[in-house]
Amino acid sequence: MINHELVKKLAARLKKDGVSALIVAPNGGDLMFLVGHNPYLCERFQGLVIKDDETVFYICNTLTESEANEFMEGNKVYSWFDCNDFTDIVKIAFEENGLIGKKIAVNGSVRAFNLIRMMDKIDFTPVNGKDYLELTRIIKTSEELENLRKSSFVVDKVFDDIVKFIKPGMTEKDIKNEIARLCQVYGGEGCDGGIVAINGNAANPHYFGDSAVVGEHTVVEMDFGCTVGGMYSDITRTVIVGKATEREKEIYNLVLKANLAGEAAAVNGAYIPDVDAAARKVIEDAGYGAYFNHRLGHGIGYAPHEAPYIHGAYKMNLAPCMAFSCEPGIYIKDEIGIRIEDVVIINENGETEVLNKCTKELIEIL
Amino acid sequence: MINHELVKKLAARLKKDGVSALIVAPNGGDLMFLVGHNPYLCERFQGLVIKDDETVFYICNTLTESEANEFMEGNKVYSWFDCNDFTDIVKIAFEENGLIGKKIAVNGSVRAFNLIRMMDKIDFTPVNGKDYLELTRIIKTSEELENLRKSSFVVDKVFDDIVKFIKPGMTEKDIKNEIARLCQVYGGEGCDGGIVAINGNAANPHYFGDSAVVGEHTVVEMDFGCTVGGMYSDITRTVIVGKATEREKEIYNLVLKANLAGEAAAVNGAYIPDVDAAARKVIEDAGYGAYFNHRLGHGIGYAPHEAPYIHGAYKMNLAPCMAFSCEPGIYIKDEIGIRIEDVVIINENGETEVLNKCTKELIEIL
Repeated sequence: MINHELVKKLAARLKKDGVSALIVAPNGGDLMFLVGHNPYLCERFQGLVIKDDETVFYICNTLTESEANEFMEGNKVYSWFDCNDFTDIVKIAFEENGLIGKKIAVNGSVRAFNLIRMMDKIDFTPVNGKDYLELTRIIKTSEELENLRKSSFVVDKVFDDIVKFIKPGMTEKDIKNEIARLCQVYGGEGCDGGIVAINGNAANPHYFGDSAVVGEHTVVEMDFGCTVGGMYSDITRTVIVGKATEREKEIYNLVLKANLAGEAAAVNGAYIPDVDAAARKVIEDAGYGAYFNHRLGHGIGYAPHEAPYIHGAYKMNLAPCMAFSCEPGIYIKDEIGIRIEDVVIINENGETEVLNKCTKELIEIL
Repeated sequence: MINHELVKKLAARLKKDGVSALIVAPNGGDLMFLVGHNPYLCERFQGLVIKDDETVFYICNTLTESEANEFMEGNKVYSWFDCNDFTDIVKIAFEENGLIGKKIAVNGSVRAFNLIRMMDKIDFTPVNGKDYLELTRIIKTSEELENLRKSSFVVDKVFDDIVKFIKPGMTEKDIKNEIARLCQVYGGEGCDGGIVAINGNAANPHYFGDSAVVGEHTVVEMDFGCTVGGMYSDITRTVIVGKATEREKEIYNLVLKANLAGEAAAVNGAYIPDVDAAARKVIEDAGYGAYFNHRLGHGIGYAPHEAPYIHGAYKMNLAPCMAFSCEPGIYIKDEIGIRIEDVVIINENGETEVLNKCTKELIEIL
């Protein structure tokens, strides 16, 4: 159902910015946050439109009209049939709502080709509206924080079990499947097994292959999450099948030190660039700076990645009820990738809670 | 690796249209088709840029730079670090490649907010380029047709097995999990269980819930697919747990008749709107026209939905080596949803092949 309080808040922000409306397409958590439901987004345009006067309407294909009617609670749903051009109904909707010629923001999941089709037919000025929803939900409610804790608890349990499961001869896919299965067993939703990457494969932080086989001596990086009550978890642990070499230990412990330094810096009120720098300095000082090629972390909630983004140019201070990941890594091409990631919250009392409690000590599976 | 023949073909089309370049982001099959690899797309912009002079370059975050370097075979990869603004590097890339002030097309997976950020900083005219790749791959190669057959064979096997698996007391999720498991067993990739929807839930053609429980008398609609060699399958079958009522039989047989009429009309050279109409007429003539609220089908290949789209306004004729779904349905709110879907190809000899061979006769699970 529509969260009218949020709609009100968003409408006020739009008004302040001189933006007449915000289009919110599904995916990425925005609609889940606003209406408690996340319709499936295919190539067909669809989205909730929030106007600066606090009214709302929805535009979708006839295919999903009855679904939209349910969460729109009697507010207008404009729909078009597959053999019509969706921009015709968007134009009618914009005309009926006084949006022609106005600034219209779009959230993070609207597709560019659909926007261009609309721009080709309708007079309006598109505005990047990705931040509207993300900054509105950057401060979590107590219920959301509780679900973040539960969601992290699930992946902690999965990690404890998966360590006992991994054996030489298994493929990355075997491990992924078991992670996905265990997530469900422990009550998590929507886990597809995430990333499981061995040795040099893990040097690509977003490796999504799955066919490599664990050998007698193999570094196994696992990055996975699920949702509980709509809230995502996100954990990365790297374990070693066999006895770790000195070099593996060196890199592992460096990443761990950086992870701990980031978490120690992530206190209420901390300037976000300083949090990133605290972790990065550990890795840079050891001469591995060039191998840590991404931000320290990202906010997390209804989306797996959302504000606040933890990097050197995100000029904001941490505040109570923010949630984000702390995930330094070292990635050396064709050799190794090690990342250690926890989700961290600043709780209602301003205390830092590292939600993932499972061990970060180097595990050797022998 | 880059398919240079395709790049050449695309460059010629761009030139003909007066478009200077095409940006191809991952997802949706386009990059898979062009470079044989589909990087993971998060909120960070990335994409291959194909110029009208047949040169190519890539733009991505440092996070995925080494991955891009692999498939870019020495062609330039522009990258930016998380704490920088990606539009700065896009601007440099556009400047170095003479693209400032030009028409630039984007494929189907570029996000609108990233496009707007680019438009705010760089002088260029965005063009809807979704069709460039889709129309280039609308005619499948023999190898692609063979993989489509294999992929459909997998889901046929899964269907045969799942019918024996479904029992009262199971949730939609239980059935999905088993579908996903069986797909892997039979050699399919990337199957998440698809849509499993019982009774009234199936009245939403894109229902993605999973908690409803199969009872003693329940209509179970299943829509799932996987890939083999990158080629998608997509099947829908609806079965009934218990004895079908007369009304269920009536609706089922009507949908089946429409499915068969669509497939009979889908001959080499057929005008696509006529194919849609052939199936739709069956349902309309029986008075259920309003309950068939979507196109008859969609093309399929490296993407689960691609050209040709089978509906009344898609003014193209079927030709050898096209592949598409035929999936009429009847959806009655709060009561029932029945859809029957096959993938159909026009083969190299111009013959129509229905790739899904598993039965479409009404199955009662007793």
